[in-house]
Amino acid sequence: MKNTFGTSLSISIFGESHGEAVGLLLDGLAPGIPVDEDYIRAQLSLRRPAGRISTARQEPDPFRILSGVYEGHTTGTPVCIMIPNTQTRSKDYAATRFLARPGHADYTAWCKYHGFEDFRGGGHFSGRITAALVAGGAIALTALAQKGIRVGTHIRSCAGIRDRDFGDLAADIEALAHMPFAVLDAEAGARMLTRLEQIAEEGDSAGGVLETAVIGMPAGVGEPWFDTVEGLLSHALFSIPAVKGVQFGEGFDMADDLGSRFNDPFRLDGERIVTATNHNGGINGGITNGMPLLIRLAVKPTPSIYKTQDTVDLQTHEEAQLSIHGRHDPAIIHRARVVADSVTALVLYDLLAGRYGTDHFCKGEA
Amino acid sequence: MKNTFGTSLSISIFGESHGEAVGLLLDGLAPGIPVDEDYIRAQLSLRRPAGRISTARQEPDPFRILSGVYEGHTTGTPVCIMIPNTQTRSKDYAATRFLARPGHADYTAWCKYHGFEDFRGGGHFSGRITAALVAGGAIALTALAQKGIRVGTHIRSCAGIRDRDFGDLAADIEALAHMPFAVLDAEAGARMLTRLEQIAEEGDSAGGVLETAVIGMPAGVGEPWFDTVEGLLSHALFSIPAVKGVQFGEGFDMADDLGSRFNDPFRLDGERIVTATNHNGGINGGITNGMPLLIRLAVKPTPSIYKTQDTVDLQTHEEAQLSIHGRHDPAIIHRARVVADSVTALVLYDLLAGRYGTDHFCKGEA
Amino acid sequence: MKNTFGTSLSISIFGESHGEAVGLLLDGLAPGIPVDEDYIRAQLSLRRPAGRISTARQEPDPFRILSGVYEGHTTGTPVCIMIPNTQTRSKDYAATRFLARPGHADYTAWCKYHGFEDFRGGGHFSGRITAALVAGGAIALTALAQKGIRVGTHIRSCAGIRDRDFGDLAADIEALAHMPFAVLDAEAGARMLTRLEQIAEEGDSAGGVLETAVIGMPAGVGEPWFDTVEGLLSHALFSIPAVKGVQFGEGFDMADDLGSRFNDPFRLDGERIVTATNHNGGINGGITNGMPLLIRLAVKPTPSIYKTQDTVDLQTHEEAQLSIHGRHDPAIIHRARVVADSVTALVLYDLLAGRYGTDHFCKGEA
Amino acid sequence: MKNTFGTSLSISIFGESHGEAVGLLLDGLAPGIPVDEDYIRAQLSLRRPAGRISTARQEPDPFRILSGVYEGHTTGTPVCIMIPNTQTRSKDYAATRFLARPGHADYTAWCKYHGFEDFRGGGHFSGRITAALVAGGAIALTALAQKGIRVGTHIRSCAGIRDRDFGDLAADIEALAHMPFAVLDAEAGARMLTRLEQIAEEGDSAGGVLETAVIGMPAGVGEPWFDTVEGLLSHALFSIPAVKGVQFGEGFDMADDLGSRFNDPFRLDGERIVTATNHNGGINGGITNGMPLLIRLAVKPTPSIYKTQDTVDLQTHEEAQLSIHGRHDPAIIHRARVVADSVTALVLYDLLAGRYGTDHFCKGEA
Repeated sequence: MKNTFGTSLSISIFGESHGEAVGLLLDGLAPGIPVDEDYIRAQLSLRRPAGRISTARQEPDPFRILSGVYEGHTTGTPVCIMIPNTQTRSKDYAATRFLARPGHADYTAWCKYHGFEDFRGGGHFSGRITAALVAGGAIALTALAQKGIRVGTHIRSCAGIRDRDFGDLAADIEALAHMPFAVLDAEAGARMLTRLEQIAEEGDSAGGVLETAVIGMPAGVGEPWFDTVEGLLSHALFSIPAVKGVQFGEGFDMADDLGSRFNDPFRLDGERIVTATNHNGGINGGITNGMPLLIRLAVKPTPSIYKTQDTVDLQTHEEAQLSIHGRHDPAIIHRARVVADSVTALVLYDLLAGRYGTDHFCKGEA
Repeated sequence: MKNTFGTSLSISIFGESHGEAVGLLLDGLAPGIPVDEDYIRAQLSLRRPAGRISTARQEPDPFRILSGVYEGHTTGTPVCIMIPNTQTRSKDYAATRFLARPGHADYTAWCKYHGFEDFRGGGHFSGRITAALVAGGAIALTALAQKGIRVGTHIRSCAGIRDRDFGDLAADIEALAHMPFAVLDAEAGARMLTRLEQIAEEGDSAGGVLETAVIGMPAGVGEPWFDTVEGLLSHALFSIPAVKGVQFGEGFDMADDLGSRFNDPFRLDGERIVTATNHNGGINGGITNGMPLLIRLAVKPTPSIYKTQDTVDLQTHEEAQLSIHGRHDPAIIHRARVVADSVTALVLYDLLAGRYGTDHFCKGEA
Repeated sequence: MKNTFGTSLSISIFGESHGEAVGLLLDGLAPGIPVDEDYIRAQLSLRRPAGRISTARQEPDPFRILSGVYEGHTTGTPVCIMIPNTQTRSKDYAATRFLARPGHADYTAWCKYHGFEDFRGGGHFSGRITAALVAGGAIALTALAQKGIRVGTHIRSCAGIRDRDFGDLAADIEALAHMPFAVLDAEAGARMLTRLEQIAEEGDSAGGVLETAVIGMPAGVGEPWFDTVEGLLSHALFSIPAVKGVQFGEGFDMADDLGSRFNDPFRLDGERIVTATNHNGGINGGITNGMPLLIRLAVKPTPSIYKTQDTVDLQTHEEAQLSIHGRHDPAIIHRARVVADSVTALVLYDLLAGRYGTDHFCKGEA
Repeated sequence: MKNTFGTSLSISIFGESHGEAVGLLLDGLAPGIPVDEDYIRAQLSLRRPAGRISTARQEPDPFRILSGVYEGHTTGTPVCIMIPNTQTRSKDYAATRFLARPGHADYTAWCKYHGFEDFRGGGHFSGRITAALVAGGAIALTALAQKGIRVGTHIRSCAGIRDRDFGDLAADIEALAHMPFAVLDAEAGARMLTRLEQIAEEGDSAGGVLETAVIGMPAGVGEPWFDTVEGLLSHALFSIPAVKGVQFGEGFDMADDLGSRFNDPFRLDGERIVTATNHNGGINGGITNGMPLLIRLAVKPTPSIYKTQDTVDLQTHEEAQLSIHGRHDPAIIHRARVVADSVTALVLYDLLAGRYGTDHFCKGEA
């Protein structure tokens, strides 16, 4: 058990919300992958809060690449990306140090780390750490794109409002890449924002469902037992704060229906074997079948709300009440989607590098 | 990527449906865990098909423990459990060798193994391999029970019919342990069986939702990033054939609701810190909070149906039609539930042995 | 920590000397590797004791392949090889159950497994378990040979008598493949055997140095930190019972000399970059340089001797004396060399499959 | 294969000699371990070059702890230590960019990374990276010391001159802790220094043998197959640049002798079971027996020498000659010994945390 994921690509996370920095260590990237700092910055900006529906903390995320990149390309040795913490207002948290916030990890951290944890702003559990995943994910997304593999995530639903279904995946993924609020149906997106602002005013919070699509994955990737594509992706995706469910293809919607409706019959598309439908989300027996991957994440409402809540004081061991002030997001789903893209890309990189070798994403001699 | 799972307990699976045997290798079991072969047999019998809703293949699963057990206890060295295959009728499969069954792993196996795979009866992808997981899971369940940790799974819904919710978890888990068809509400269970028989007669198949509860888990187990309890459990649980979704607590049901409803406020229960509700399924920030774990699995309808389906001949690369004969389950959810118990127990063993050391489950000197 | 080794090829060992079987699980073998049972048998025969210098236990090692092989080729799914134990005379050991044999693992096993260990014949620590490594190693050796990579080990010295140095490596490796007592200089070999028989008569035991050569390895395999070729090979090779030292190239002989003598200058051999000398044993910075790998293992004298030794009774916790009877080898170095070949081949397979992908050793479609 | 080591403690290295920084990520440290920055600095100073026998590069190694430490103790979350590179004179290397230095990793890096590697100053292969290991090792050494486990390394021999054998281990380890040139016999140490200066003047280089002792290790730690104490230690220790051999206890010296001399008979020392001798270096069957661990490392002469050497130009693919200028150590063994201490401590931490649980080194509540 550890804060590291992956076999061929090892993904390790470090840092605390109000410590010196958050960061990511990627070990196993092929030599020769272009590293475009502007693209990393653009991806980070998609994760950054914006407008009334997000916390007021507006860090520019000035990442630094400490190792593994030389003259604009990965070297093949470990890449360490550090994002220094600059705007930390720790006094916001000191007053409620021992009041475990419901729905947060304060109590479980206390049980696990015996009070030695850096509790400020959620410490190592803070969503801020996902910035490091996004920075590293940008490199993986670049590498996948070179092989014709594209990843995109939309907010399928939020606060009870549904986006339209994915349509032309290539076009939808392209459109999503530049959308600050990733909803395919603009009108539905506008309604979500209005509803989220309402919820924010009520001091409450909302969740939703993210749906990720991946096109261009070759068939035959994944393992039948344990290291299934579903197992590996879900393992990593459950690390995104607030994710409480992961499903592939139709997932829970298939559960109460009939086999004759969901079997995805095979047919030919020119020379290529494809399935007529894609209820299984591009995976059979844990292995890719060449169809688009379809993944849905249940994102619970952010636990930081402004209503008074019952809790226990961890130090005095007495029941208490908690009113949270400070900076918090009434929703994080719109920020989480680029994290979903990033984590998905890192896991697929791992799978493909294992399948095809460590140089699979190398562009040839320098 | 491999057919092995776990850090402190390493769980490796082997075997093909129509090969010599299926089996499991467990490395990391503490010395001194009682191994009760009758209990293993009883667990295997819960996985075995029964009645009209299951395949006619009725193997007694005569397992053999090849290593790691001496005088009725684990020795602390690797335990290999082998279940020989005895009733294999391979000719059932030869005729349709190259007709990829929709919804199955035939095509993905072809892409991955280039035709060298043992295709007979699904080969390494066969649900039969879960028998080995059940045999090994029985040892893990025994070890957990010694620490007051109990695991139970019911069919929350099947073919559109709902079981009642979990109530008194200790009593429900106890009741489920001996139920061949694990539905808490007997009347709902009877309706499910009737519906399943109907579906079988139509040559179709059904899925459903399994819900697993775990009581007695200590707080503070799991890691914040990647090796979250959700991540580890989902990684392993997605290996159970037909599972296409995993969620914890209310999962997808929380996604479109408000934070104020799902935060599980803390309170005292005597000396113990508990939560008033358990929407998060016993896990905050990826770490156990001492409340019961609640896990739901989406089980898709079994892909083996008797209706004619479109497919492609992998050898001739031409479109074709497939009618399946032979032995198949119109539903496997009632058999999968003991697999869910087993996999859950193995993963929790791994987590606890990592947290508390390799002797945590040792009963003291021989 | 576990009884499993490898990343792309996972190698797991199980079994006890006097239990039901010993065995090996190999996960990660490419599909399509030919599995020649006669070759496996031949390799096993090289490990089997022979003549006066070896224990009288003469098992035919009738291995069974339980999974992962179909119609003479690996399928790509886990290969489990089981070697049943047939000639177990456990009563030989019962009398001295609690008298820890000096130099053996009896006392450390007692400390680790708290008395639950299967102590008979060394249990899980027995050299017998290496038979499983040899069976599995035969498959890895076949796969390597298909890529032009050959492995061979000679007894560089034994009981104080030196074999000649390696000369023409291709010819030497070829010759060693069929030698029951792997000494390149026949006259030195005869002297070793005479000396070993003498030592056996004195109730004593001998060790020696094994030297393994590998030709045909491509340059650029291995990692700079931690997963160096030296680190991975030594990690696995130290599992061979009685190995207490591992060195590469000139190893300890370089330590007290000058840099100018050992730097292996580069030159061209036609188009190929080679080194003029090979003091570094084919590895620079932990990575292969395309020259032959050269590995030496220090094999300590087998601890089973017939002289009376001081020990402690683990049960009564009193000092005691031990006289060993039963079957024991006065030397195992001549049997260990095929184990060294096998372990080396398995580790190199792991390295190459990681470098070039999981299909690297696949021979193409079935 | 990767730049990460360890199961319960994950040790990952990053950085290049002339990049922005070198660093270490430690994941799995218990919460509550005191982190004494002065002690880290003192350890780093032991690794720093000094006097005529070392390179002129004199960096103060101003490390920064980016995460995982709060108010003077580890938090239990990943600790990232960064050591910025400040005195980098890259132009020293540009002229000989494509002339592979014999004995170095230039050629193997070229083969592995296809020219994308940061070649300046050895890049990721530079001994400079061991500074990060020393900084992290200091935390592991502190944690071990709290459990009464002490680690010390002396230069057993260098340039052909022998130090005295270890005597009273507790006293010797204590004395070594503060010795800049770690030789127990002061007179031998003085002769080594004189000889090294001579060798430096000749433009040549020297190696030697390091011997590490560990006292206070409990019995019963390690695994019988693959994750033996010897296997794990050697795996990590071979990463120290220039190490070409690792042996335990008498190692290669036992190989040509008799079993009756090396079996380490058991006896009682009060209540404790001990061995009368310690030829096996505290390890039987891969598992600690409670006696001191004794480890020897063969350190080859540093490959950077000032004599003209034959090589090949990697770009033009022509034979060439190389004369090295710039800063280089004529010997690194006196600097490597604190690296040996550090790596040993990190590996033992990993073993003990796996054996006794993740909190084993926690000092209790904050």
